[in-house]
Amino acid sequence: MRKGEATRAAILDRATDLARSTGVEGLSIGRLATELSLSKSGLFAHFGSKEALQVAIVEHAREQFVARVIAPGLKAARGEPRLRALFERWLSWGSQAGGCIFLHLAAELDDRPGPARDALAAAIRDLLDVLATTTRVAIDEGQFRGDVDPHQVAFELYGIMAATHAAARLVGDPKAGARTRRALDGLIARCR
Amino acid sequence: MRKGEATRAAILDRATDLARSTGVEGLSIGRLATELSLSKSGLFAHFGSKEALQVAIVEHAREQFVARVIAPGLKAARGEPRLRALFERWLSWGSQAGGCIFLHLAAELDDRPGPARDALAAAIRDLLDVLATTTRVAIDEGQFRGDVDPHQVAFELYGIMAATHAAARLVGDPKAGARTRRALDGLIARCR
Repeated sequence: MRKGEATRAAILDRATDLARSTGVEGLSIGRLATELSLSKSGLFAHFGSKEALQVAIVEHAREQFVARVIAPGLKAARGEPRLRALFERWLSWGSQAGGCIFLHLAAELDDRPGPARDALAAAIRDLLDVLATTTRVAIDEGQFRGDVDPHQVAFELYGIMAATHAAARLVGDPKAGARTRRALDGLIARCR
Repeated sequence: MRKGEATRAAILDRATDLARSTGVEGLSIGRLATELSLSKSGLFAHFGSKEALQVAIVEHAREQFVARVIAPGLKAARGEPRLRALFERWLSWGSQAGGCIFLHLAAELDDRPGPARDALAAAIRDLLDVLATTTRVAIDEGQFRGDVDPHQVAFELYGIMAATHAAARLVGDPKAGARTRRALDGLIARCR
């Protein structure tokens, strides 16, 4: 990796960490530059604009998500075990400091048309598609009933994750973990 | 209402409208002051600090939510009809420009300790409590089974609303409305 690429990767790692808590609009470029011992203009030289940096953060988070959630989740046995593995890894991803960056950015960017919002919508659409496809396989394998709607399952899994986030991170519900488990088990039991 | 109170109310109305899209951290005080023909210092004189303004926005949104969602919803017949009425009104509240401010702020503030986060957590806890209490009444009335967990139902209703938001506002799923309805009907059917 050349020096420019290494610097760009370091900026993106740190920017994505910060954006999990602050969002991309609230990201302090000054703080980011200071932490990385760069000038603001030096930092921007790697991206061109604040908007391009935001898109790069979403793409970087997406690559991390594929590496930490999707790819290992897809190694589980086809169908229900794979669906559970994907959800469990998504839970772990969401329990890191700052929570799930996609849930944070979904709230922040849904009303802000532009390339960062488009990149985020594509990332979440992909995630829902992976969950739906995995559900489809569980139907084909005979684990789930034939009348299960794979995209409905993906929709409801997203909802469980969002409720988990609010209960655990904001409301401070001590039973958040148990409620998550119960909602997940209930959803899967209804598919069988 | 004295002039000072009327100005404060006008500031809060507009600030809350803007915060639905931008959040409270990203709220432009300059834009708010310009729109209301106030100086920034004149605007702050009504609140004292940015933090106090943020708390006032959360409290204002909470009052609007009680007036537009909770109070009319509670007029429906006890139990299941009331639970549905509360959810329907919450859906309408979430379909206004900017969406549901509580879902937006939950993502923005969950990692930002302070009075605005505390006020928001209290507002969402209250909302979950109303949903749980309404579910409890449906159990007492014999509409729902005795082994239904009211707080689990509230948790799952929150999840459905969050999934609706993402599907309708970000992903652009044309079936978002149908998925919401199906998830809600499924949850209620399982309680019977």
